[in-house]
Amino acid sequence: MIVVMKIGASQEELNNVTQAAEELGFSSHVIEGKERNVVGLVGIAGQRDKMNVIGQLAGVENIVPISKPYKLASREVKPEPSIIDVCGVKFGGENIPVIAGPCSVENEEGVIKTAEFIKAAGAQMLRGGAFKPRTSPYSFQGLEEDGLKILAKAREATGLPIVTEVTNPRYVDMVYKYADMFQVGARNVQNFALLSELGKTDKPVLLKRGMSTTIEEYLNATEYILSEGNKNVILCERGLRTFETATRNTLDISAVPVIKEKSHLPIIIDPSHAAGHWQYVGPLSKAAVAIGADGLIIEVHPEPEKAWSDGAQSLTPTQFLKLMGSMRSIALAIGRTI
Amino acid sequence: MIVVMKIGASQEELNNVTQAAEELGFSSHVIEGKERNVVGLVGIAGQRDKMNVIGQLAGVENIVPISKPYKLASREVKPEPSIIDVCGVKFGGENIPVIAGPCSVENEEGVIKTAEFIKAAGAQMLRGGAFKPRTSPYSFQGLEEDGLKILAKAREATGLPIVTEVTNPRYVDMVYKYADMFQVGARNVQNFALLSELGKTDKPVLLKRGMSTTIEEYLNATEYILSEGNKNVILCERGLRTFETATRNTLDISAVPVIKEKSHLPIIIDPSHAAGHWQYVGPLSKAAVAIGADGLIIEVHPEPEKAWSDGAQSLTPTQFLKLMGSMRSIALAIGRTI
Amino acid sequence: MIVVMKIGASQEELNNVTQAAEELGFSSHVIEGKERNVVGLVGIAGQRDKMNVIGQLAGVENIVPISKPYKLASREVKPEPSIIDVCGVKFGGENIPVIAGPCSVENEEGVIKTAEFIKAAGAQMLRGGAFKPRTSPYSFQGLEEDGLKILAKAREATGLPIVTEVTNPRYVDMVYKYADMFQVGARNVQNFALLSELGKTDKPVLLKRGMSTTIEEYLNATEYILSEGNKNVILCERGLRTFETATRNTLDISAVPVIKEKSHLPIIIDPSHAAGHWQYVGPLSKAAVAIGADGLIIEVHPEPEKAWSDGAQSLTPTQFLKLMGSMRSIALAIGRTI
Amino acid sequence: MIVVMKIGASQEELNNVTQAAEELGFSSHVIEGKERNVVGLVGIAGQRDKMNVIGQLAGVENIVPISKPYKLASREVKPEPSIIDVCGVKFGGENIPVIAGPCSVENEEGVIKTAEFIKAAGAQMLRGGAFKPRTSPYSFQGLEEDGLKILAKAREATGLPIVTEVTNPRYVDMVYKYADMFQVGARNVQNFALLSELGKTDKPVLLKRGMSTTIEEYLNATEYILSEGNKNVILCERGLRTFETATRNTLDISAVPVIKEKSHLPIIIDPSHAAGHWQYVGPLSKAAVAIGADGLIIEVHPEPEKAWSDGAQSLTPTQFLKLMGSMRSIALAIGRTI
Repeated sequence: MIVVMKIGASQEELNNVTQAAEELGFSSHVIEGKERNVVGLVGIAGQRDKMNVIGQLAGVENIVPISKPYKLASREVKPEPSIIDVCGVKFGGENIPVIAGPCSVENEEGVIKTAEFIKAAGAQMLRGGAFKPRTSPYSFQGLEEDGLKILAKAREATGLPIVTEVTNPRYVDMVYKYADMFQVGARNVQNFALLSELGKTDKPVLLKRGMSTTIEEYLNATEYILSEGNKNVILCERGLRTFETATRNTLDISAVPVIKEKSHLPIIIDPSHAAGHWQYVGPLSKAAVAIGADGLIIEVHPEPEKAWSDGAQSLTPTQFLKLMGSMRSIALAIGRTI
Repeated sequence: MIVVMKIGASQEELNNVTQAAEELGFSSHVIEGKERNVVGLVGIAGQRDKMNVIGQLAGVENIVPISKPYKLASREVKPEPSIIDVCGVKFGGENIPVIAGPCSVENEEGVIKTAEFIKAAGAQMLRGGAFKPRTSPYSFQGLEEDGLKILAKAREATGLPIVTEVTNPRYVDMVYKYADMFQVGARNVQNFALLSELGKTDKPVLLKRGMSTTIEEYLNATEYILSEGNKNVILCERGLRTFETATRNTLDISAVPVIKEKSHLPIIIDPSHAAGHWQYVGPLSKAAVAIGADGLIIEVHPEPEKAWSDGAQSLTPTQFLKLMGSMRSIALAIGRTI
Repeated sequence: MIVVMKIGASQEELNNVTQAAEELGFSSHVIEGKERNVVGLVGIAGQRDKMNVIGQLAGVENIVPISKPYKLASREVKPEPSIIDVCGVKFGGENIPVIAGPCSVENEEGVIKTAEFIKAAGAQMLRGGAFKPRTSPYSFQGLEEDGLKILAKAREATGLPIVTEVTNPRYVDMVYKYADMFQVGARNVQNFALLSELGKTDKPVLLKRGMSTTIEEYLNATEYILSEGNKNVILCERGLRTFETATRNTLDISAVPVIKEKSHLPIIIDPSHAAGHWQYVGPLSKAAVAIGADGLIIEVHPEPEKAWSDGAQSLTPTQFLKLMGSMRSIALAIGRTI
Repeated sequence: MIVVMKIGASQEELNNVTQAAEELGFSSHVIEGKERNVVGLVGIAGQRDKMNVIGQLAGVENIVPISKPYKLASREVKPEPSIIDVCGVKFGGENIPVIAGPCSVENEEGVIKTAEFIKAAGAQMLRGGAFKPRTSPYSFQGLEEDGLKILAKAREATGLPIVTEVTNPRYVDMVYKYADMFQVGARNVQNFALLSELGKTDKPVLLKRGMSTTIEEYLNATEYILSEGNKNVILCERGLRTFETATRNTLDISAVPVIKEKSHLPIIIDPSHAAGHWQYVGPLSKAAVAIGADGLIIEVHPEPEKAWSDGAQSLTPTQFLKLMGSMRSIALAIGRTI
């Protein structure tokens, strides 16, 4: 931690800072500047709570933390990239798996039909929501356990592993019985009670970034899972909330290289929720492959105009098939496969 | 719902829209414009899911919803303001109650001492966190049930009702035993599983606005509580996430008049989390009273420089006492009391 | 400047940093931490350009500047508050002047009538736009010099000093002939060519904050005026761009105490552009007085429903008169006058 | 325009709206809804100023504009894409031109050396700043006309057309003498005085999007150029201001498909200013090609660690050469060339 003193802070104020720091267990090093002094404090990392109080002492302008608050997600702790295996589908390696399926599970026939189609087109996992966190309580909330059963049948029919959202710590056990990977939605990225619970399970977790979560907070959120023992976390960028309304969210595609630099965890892209309009999903998917994403999760619905949720951003099976072809060409150009 | 057609959309595309709308149960009214046509659809409100699909039909530029997605929170349903009574403390009337106390419950002696002090200064409720949702799992997470017991003792000692945060649907019953009002933090504003559970209880809920929640989404979130039967919801603005870093968050003080226009629910201000620095808490509190907030929730700690969390934004008892005086003068100037 | 080295950076990388720093004229102080090293560099402030390059050396995690980039606007250079005098109207003292008038100058009769009315209500300056920077070139762009002449006549009729916007360095001379204070709009806050030109004049400048300008950038922008010799700058917060659409912009009312802490320059509030809807202008104005703003600039139009621009956010004369009364009570409560 | 009436608005209020609309020259069509009425107004587009006043009438909830405020930039006016020719370099066609060069012009030898290098690597235009709008007046402001002369010499030496920034309407004539394309920086995107002046010239304009400019405002800004007669405008996305600080700005890569849908103008990407760190420039450039951008503008400096500005985000010639190869493979994969 660096303590920046105010211009004109007194020697006594400086002494108070070094003394307080030493009481908190830090050793301190004063650097005399031309305008002002700064004090470097050396000690145990991660004690931000107690460290912050130094910022309030008289004569202190501000404090600057040096060590990162996350550990297990960091490249500094684990330099080589993690490859997360979900029933044989590997995220984080040369291959770029595509997860596809409807926003919400509506009926058995539709889900199985979709699953068969996306498998034929080259998708490696099936997505579908049985618990839907909707902005309004009057919108469709999902089929719950019946939805999970339908997903399990689609897996049986196609062999595709399934990923589905869990929104309540109470339902972790129930979802565990059916899912191959848990999904935590953007609104729950800092639902720490839920994350800790998932950290105690042995199934992978797809943790979506919140729409106003910084990358540092996002990696901190993964620590709630990792520190409980579950090392199988896949990250997913799905768009930030900004002032721009032409898209549902603003896809922060830079998050891919930034996260790859800071963390060993795989990072995939959800172009559907970012775009909010089907016609932008294809372009964003191609950009995701080119920038080095470790996977994609794309909404596909046999009849988007009849979908119970998110129809506007779902691709038809035909559009999806065509997109898979385009993405494959780009993957090839960068030396990867889809 | 208004359907805006593209310039140059064909008659057939227009017919498809009106036909699809009628199949969905709407009656349609075409308005022929100079550049393009628009179609007004009349029908049952709140069917946004199914309505959205019309936006995808060929020739449609975009769609504009007319009815608000929230009902029970709306002034249109209940024009007169709601007064929420928490063990005799009334939010939403002429009086402006101040809730005060430490960020987190640390020990019995400190909490009781703080409670006695803030009561003497004129605060009407005690706040204190026993479950702390912290960005990092390595930060202090709260004393949990032991913390709740300390709060209950402070209530016994002072008679001040207590408000404390609940973060997990599993702990609603436990917190219910001790608290007079539940608090839902900003990160959980769209934790719908938690909100629904609180909607089934009979104790008031202080629901904080998320740092990137629009006012419309915020009022929708209250519907998860209200629609389960619990009508006692108090809103709380505590700052938005913006690019500005001089303050921890950007207090959206306009939310007070906006919410008062759209909703009958009381709205209070949390200046401490917005400011992030104690020296801005006083000015923001005074602005909150002047703009018409129905209450405040302010962090006070006997020794902020030793607080386990949020010390930087906590007032000392002396600062709080002085602020209460300033706020009282302003309340008087606008015909209210504190 | 503090240089944070990567965990595991080599001794050679550390040496390269200290050597490069010394070549750039800094003296360097290495602090050995438990996880990583940091290097404090002491030297001439304000050389950010050249300093940044150190951030790119191998083994460097990031760099942290210590000195502030602005000087003349800073409290560190001038601790006591500046009082800016505009033809006898003083901003920055105990009195809180109110500037009022229409968004744009439309015709002589209307402007003079408005000026007389606002003067009677207690406003101390007249505002009105003759050059209007409008989002679309097809919107009304202002009466230009004819508008300035009308403003001058209104000054003659009432004695109120006038403030009006200048948008083009070419027109600084023309506006100078008529105005008592230049206004620079939010879109031009970083139009440095314009600011430098105004810095060479001897009339005060009302510089509005941009809708996405940080406070640090804002104070930097004032340096373009101050460093040319013109010390008479008044700041004005008028709302940030955020995701919230219930108001036209999100008024960052915290900017008042933050700027008062960092700078000696007066800061006033424009509630009209922040709100975008007349019904929120009154509440925001009252909050502005309570928080300690040094003035207000409020749009008033004799018939808002016929205004050529910004009618939706203009107060009628009657609404303005009532608001002046409310603001006076609050000013009294905090020991100031309006 | 659609006028949404309040629930419970009276018949008299409705009549006032239709009457006011008719006085303003609109014909009105009332649609009776189940909860409330809406009124469709048909009339001349683009009269937003006068239309807004209807929003203030009693009983009106809000108003919804239907027609877009921009015309000449719109696909509705010109459906086929525009190809902008800058001395033989074509933007908007199958080929994707790359513009490269240093942030600021520092000396003749360096610029010519860089120009020769980037030409050899396949760049088709040279960039370099002679007028630098810097956040602080104490940062390097550019060599001004001397810088322009150096650029002209580099053009002579290499045949590469040059693009350079103009920041002041006063200097348009001077820059015109040297540049092949004007650049307007992000801070000046709504400097309408400057845009109008450029609209009167016959050289192409590269207009960068502001960091908090919506796409609608951005296209409106182009109208200031287009409506003066200059049809040669190239758009450039360079990152939005958000809360995320890991990158200098958040590249809104979705702007490419959105703008291509709404406008016929070419849109290129500036990955350097968005990233702010050289290591992210390559990934963003590849994403830009994959998503369909019509060009790139990339900062290249022979010795970034000695650059006078933006060194941290500049590529070395070797990094640039390698990136050109990667981009070419991706261009090939999507059927385009670089």
